[in-house]
Amino acid sequence: MPVDSVPPEQKAQIANAVRAALAEHGYARLTTKKVAAESDKSEAGLYYYYDSKDEMIVAFLETSEDYLARSLHDIDAEGPEARLRAVCDILLVDEGDAAAAGVNIAVMELLSHAPHNETLREPLLRMERHTLGVIADIVRDGVEQGVFREVDPEGTAAFVLSATDGYTGFALALGMEGVGDDLRASLSAYIDSLLVVA
Amino acid sequence: MPVDSVPPEQKAQIANAVRAALAEHGYARLTTKKVAAESDKSEAGLYYYYDSKDEMIVAFLETSEDYLARSLHDIDAEGPEARLRAVCDILLVDEGDAAAAGVNIAVMELLSHAPHNETLREPLLRMERHTLGVIADIVRDGVEQGVFREVDPEGTAAFVLSATDGYTGFALALGMEGVGDDLRASLSAYIDSLLVVA
Repeated sequence: MPVDSVPPEQKAQIANAVRAALAEHGYARLTTKKVAAESDKSEAGLYYYYDSKDEMIVAFLETSEDYLARSLHDIDAEGPEARLRAVCDILLVDEGDAAAAGVNIAVMELLSHAPHNETLREPLLRMERHTLGVIADIVRDGVEQGVFREVDPEGTAAFVLSATDGYTGFALALGMEGVGDDLRASLSAYIDSLLVVA
Repeated sequence: MPVDSVPPEQKAQIANAVRAALAEHGYARLTTKKVAAESDKSEAGLYYYYDSKDEMIVAFLETSEDYLARSLHDIDAEGPEARLRAVCDILLVDEGDAAAAGVNIAVMELLSHAPHNETLREPLLRMERHTLGVIADIVRDGVEQGVFREVDPEGTAAFVLSATDGYTGFALALGMEGVGDDLRASLSAYIDSLLVVA
């Protein structure tokens, strides 16, 4: 079936099964059989909608992208400083949340395949660009409102996103104890350093 | 052969071949045949020294760890500020250097396998801990000498290492243009913000 024709509820169900299977097994060991095990569908049922494992992963990435975009959009905090802190809270998943950590580690693995795999590269690029744009907009608002110093919005966004992405590798994948809390505190101190001192 | 008994020059040669093969193919598609193609050894010649592909990768990681440790140790810059900037220059490889970018992307892929693969996890953990320690020592020196503000050395190190690790995913693996320069500038501004203002 052309991927654009997959009914949204089927796409969402399959994306959920891919998420659960990726969190547990990672990408290299992922099989459509393992995706089917997390789903109410058989392997044949999955292939009715998607032609390949990578297409199922793209369905997961697009669903994640929508979910992340909605989470970022729905942030309840007011003002650029509180919004920037809220974004960081969303991006730095809790080490104790095994499922969320597994998903982030799997996304890091997918990123490592991006140079060799155009199918995966496009949705990953869209997701990173979107998140970068959301952070840059918050920083730009903050500079315009005089809350933040005259920092470069794009550069600051790249720095924050890099730091939260990098956390996945050494705090989540390696399980280095205490590093997550250290990083959270330093990221918070970094945000302090962006503030205009009254 | 027990891995500790592999002669150093053989280990170095095999580690080099693994590095070249990983940079080109990544981990998932790596075979000992591809390692042999980058080496003056046959596959049988590789297996004479190491029992598995992962053991050859550990030889590469240990060699990289030594190399990175030496590079960090040999930094020529004087004073904590210049030393911290030099570390960042070492950790942020040039996007234009395809071989170095490929190696960093492959190490990110290896990190994503760490939760499932004890053999890979140990040397990766050692490498990250060592680098974290080097950065923390520089920051601690800087605080003691009154060059840096009273920041937490471990937290600051975690933040810097996270940011440089995260750069691999979105600037190197996705090839997002301009992001590397943005990040370099913001990391440099971050180091400025650590300085005690005279």
